[in-house]
Amino acid sequence: MKFTAGQIAELLNGKVEGNEEAIVRNVSKIEEGKPETLTFLANPKYSQYIYTTNAEVVIVNDSFEAEKEIKATLIRVPNAYEALAQLLEMYEQSQPQKTGIEQPSFVSESASLGDFVYVGAFAYIGENVTIGDNVKIYPQAYVGDNVKIGDNTVIYPGVKVYKNCVIGKACTIHAGAVIGSDGFGFAPNSENEYKKVAQIGNVVLNDHVEIGANTTIDRATMGSTVIQKGVKLDNLIQVAHNVEVGENTVIAAQTGVAGSTKIGKNCMFGGQVGIGGHINIADGTKVGAQAGIGGTIKKEGLTLMGSPVIDVKLFYKASAVFRRLPDLKMQVDQLQRDMDNLK
Amino acid sequence: MKFTAGQIAELLNGKVEGNEEAIVRNVSKIEEGKPETLTFLANPKYSQYIYTTNAEVVIVNDSFEAEKEIKATLIRVPNAYEALAQLLEMYEQSQPQKTGIEQPSFVSESASLGDFVYVGAFAYIGENVTIGDNVKIYPQAYVGDNVKIGDNTVIYPGVKVYKNCVIGKACTIHAGAVIGSDGFGFAPNSENEYKKVAQIGNVVLNDHVEIGANTTIDRATMGSTVIQKGVKLDNLIQVAHNVEVGENTVIAAQTGVAGSTKIGKNCMFGGQVGIGGHINIADGTKVGAQAGIGGTIKKEGLTLMGSPVIDVKLFYKASAVFRRLPDLKMQVDQLQRDMDNLK
Amino acid sequence: MKFTAGQIAELLNGKVEGNEEAIVRNVSKIEEGKPETLTFLANPKYSQYIYTTNAEVVIVNDSFEAEKEIKATLIRVPNAYEALAQLLEMYEQSQPQKTGIEQPSFVSESASLGDFVYVGAFAYIGENVTIGDNVKIYPQAYVGDNVKIGDNTVIYPGVKVYKNCVIGKACTIHAGAVIGSDGFGFAPNSENEYKKVAQIGNVVLNDHVEIGANTTIDRATMGSTVIQKGVKLDNLIQVAHNVEVGENTVIAAQTGVAGSTKIGKNCMFGGQVGIGGHINIADGTKVGAQAGIGGTIKKEGLTLMGSPVIDVKLFYKASAVFRRLPDLKMQVDQLQRDMDNLK
Repeated sequence: MKFTAGQIAELLNGKVEGNEEAIVRNVSKIEEGKPETLTFLANPKYSQYIYTTNAEVVIVNDSFEAEKEIKATLIRVPNAYEALAQLLEMYEQSQPQKTGIEQPSFVSESASLGDFVYVGAFAYIGENVTIGDNVKIYPQAYVGDNVKIGDNTVIYPGVKVYKNCVIGKACTIHAGAVIGSDGFGFAPNSENEYKKVAQIGNVVLNDHVEIGANTTIDRATMGSTVIQKGVKLDNLIQVAHNVEVGENTVIAAQTGVAGSTKIGKNCMFGGQVGIGGHINIADGTKVGAQAGIGGTIKKEGLTLMGSPVIDVKLFYKASAVFRRLPDLKMQVDQLQRDMDNLK
Repeated sequence: MKFTAGQIAELLNGKVEGNEEAIVRNVSKIEEGKPETLTFLANPKYSQYIYTTNAEVVIVNDSFEAEKEIKATLIRVPNAYEALAQLLEMYEQSQPQKTGIEQPSFVSESASLGDFVYVGAFAYIGENVTIGDNVKIYPQAYVGDNVKIGDNTVIYPGVKVYKNCVIGKACTIHAGAVIGSDGFGFAPNSENEYKKVAQIGNVVLNDHVEIGANTTIDRATMGSTVIQKGVKLDNLIQVAHNVEVGENTVIAAQTGVAGSTKIGKNCMFGGQVGIGGHINIADGTKVGAQAGIGGTIKKEGLTLMGSPVIDVKLFYKASAVFRRLPDLKMQVDQLQRDMDNLK
Repeated sequence: MKFTAGQIAELLNGKVEGNEEAIVRNVSKIEEGKPETLTFLANPKYSQYIYTTNAEVVIVNDSFEAEKEIKATLIRVPNAYEALAQLLEMYEQSQPQKTGIEQPSFVSESASLGDFVYVGAFAYIGENVTIGDNVKIYPQAYVGDNVKIGDNTVIYPGVKVYKNCVIGKACTIHAGAVIGSDGFGFAPNSENEYKKVAQIGNVVLNDHVEIGANTTIDRATMGSTVIQKGVKLDNLIQVAHNVEVGENTVIAAQTGVAGSTKIGKNCMFGGQVGIGGHINIADGTKVGAQAGIGGTIKKEGLTLMGSPVIDVKLFYKASAVFRRLPDLKMQVDQLQRDMDNLK
């Protein structure tokens, strides 16, 4: 590829500051910027690098104010990260796309495939499966009986979708994710043995959902485990049976949600968070990494941290005292001795 | 399906309270109960919904006492959850079952398969594998050389069982689980490099074990990593080399057990628990979510929480003080000033 | 197999103490030592068992000093664990090795395979893939377009390597690991929806890297996520986009590293550690299990624990006070009352 700063600015409706004819042939990170590459500055943490980068062209926010001289040509846009996303998408779409049915693959006679579908080698499409248009099923993926998959969805290699699950339009499911495994339900008997409770429900992913690699979402005991529209789940997340995750909620890697919990809309969870079962989390809740939530969060828009969770600012203050606890204990013991002497 | 309340009560040896002829055609959750559906009430948290549910029939415990009028027909049984489990199992067993050898699949000539076995397309059965009767091996599963699998076991799509492992009767292994990967053993040398220690042992799962999706169980360095009879492991759990998990122990998702640790019988672990290496956990230990266990637990039947773990009640009391630590610190500093003034 | 103590000592350049003609036919753990087996003592935690073990021969460190009489024959070597590793490796290498191309498999015409390569059934090798000599690709593995794999690397069953990734020489990747899935990058819009940011970079694993079962390593947004030479990652680890893990760093199971973080050389991380995004971790940092690291660690060689992390000794001292917090609080409240009375 080869573009000038002027051409890129035109694509992005941006303004060039510097050399309109500056040429880029590749992309790079701002801290490793190389000649003839394009980079961007969105996170202020990286501002320092704009003065030293060897990148040819840098996309910046309109609001960016330079504190020193900058060698690179700038392209100013309202939102640098969005503009970058737009460019990367154009690049991605210019790449060759997989299509057609590779052999050997297993497609049941009763399955129905839309137009322009890709089915990779060793993929398995069960009975009565319905697959929409432009769907890509990569090699070694498993689509169980009666599953429905909406238009434009991408199923990466080795994804397993158990029977009766429903996947919406424009979803992306990454390699190794498991959709619809049995919920963890067992009834103990008097000999302390556990009898399996059959899990006869399913999982429903609505449109525009993205599921990370090796993430697991269990089918409901009865009814559905539901991932609402626009939800983004990172890698290695566990979603237990009968959970509902609300619209446009975003969850980082290795977080776990226990059974029958209902998470609201527009929530954000850091990585390795644990969320207990049979509780509700209000819309717009933000939760820091490694937090533990054992009870319902009723108030919307809180920012929480710790295990059990408390207000994030309080958590950091309390943690600052935690590391001084040995001193605090000694201080109190000394006060005690002083007090005993006084009394 | 179509049943009357009377017919279901007969199946369950229960007593009808209300309309014996009430008809159910499906199941639903009590809080979303729909007409012509069957539901149940086992967890007291959901008691409120029994007075408003539109479900036709509700299975309840004999001990349940209504506080208000209930529209639905009740079926009283000794244990509502067990009764539900019984019904769900009947339903599950009435569903069509997979059987036969789908093509293409790979079955070594030296492998021995029992009667009524299902082998899905793209499944791989290595050399000298022995598979019992009624075993189901779903598509894209891998069964390495010399593996033994007992009667009635179900191996879901994409499960990987490394060579020489042994799987008991009536086990269930969910999609993407890995049984018998190498233990994490490396010997450092003087240049800070790590030399791999070959892991020549195996994994043994005894009868009636259930393993969740994408859970990993490493093979022993020498000897066996052992999962005893009746153990239930949820999704995304890590069991390291040479671990033993005792009979009927239940472990929730994303918990990890480090190498050579021995966990007793009838233990219960919440999600995201971390268990250190080379320790013992006594029978009947109960551990809350996100706990961290660094040392041996000798006394049986304790209930623990926190990282490092302490008694669960103490943990909650100490956590309540934790969130007041900034205040406590200020209070102590004020006391200090008062004391200094007094002295 | 059948060896005498004398033969083993010769292989290991060790010294026999006891019966040179003692015969071993198998290996066992010291605490379960059986007649005619070989075992070892490296971890002092297991020293007690050497006086009671029924193992025939025990490999011990030169520095080991017996406190009582030992029935078994000893073989003294400079480092018992290394000597064991050497023996296990000899055993492993004596086992039959897979080779050749099993059918059915999918190998693109444009792919290039080295000498003595194993490709298992149902493995998928995409376009323009380059595979070195002696590489083993087990069944159901996926190697996307343009991937490069160096000599002597082993890819276990069901591993998924997305397009354009690069894997070095003598690497081992365990079953179900995912290399090169999309980084978790989304740009929010004004309606609280998230637009995917295409991830056009790749993952580079350098030589002698080992990746555990079901571990996930995301591709970079631009450029590469890099795992340097000699790194060992355990099972179920998450490595986000644009991370770099430095040479010979070792990370235990279920740890997660957020995006763009740079981890130094010779670090050691316990299990379930969480590492925030856009930070640096100095060379030689040691971090205990379940720790949480939110900020850059500048000083080399620290040993840390807790969430947020603090010095490990301080963590244990502070945790000891944590469990006495309810008492401390009562003590302070009593001091307060005494003070109020005095004033």
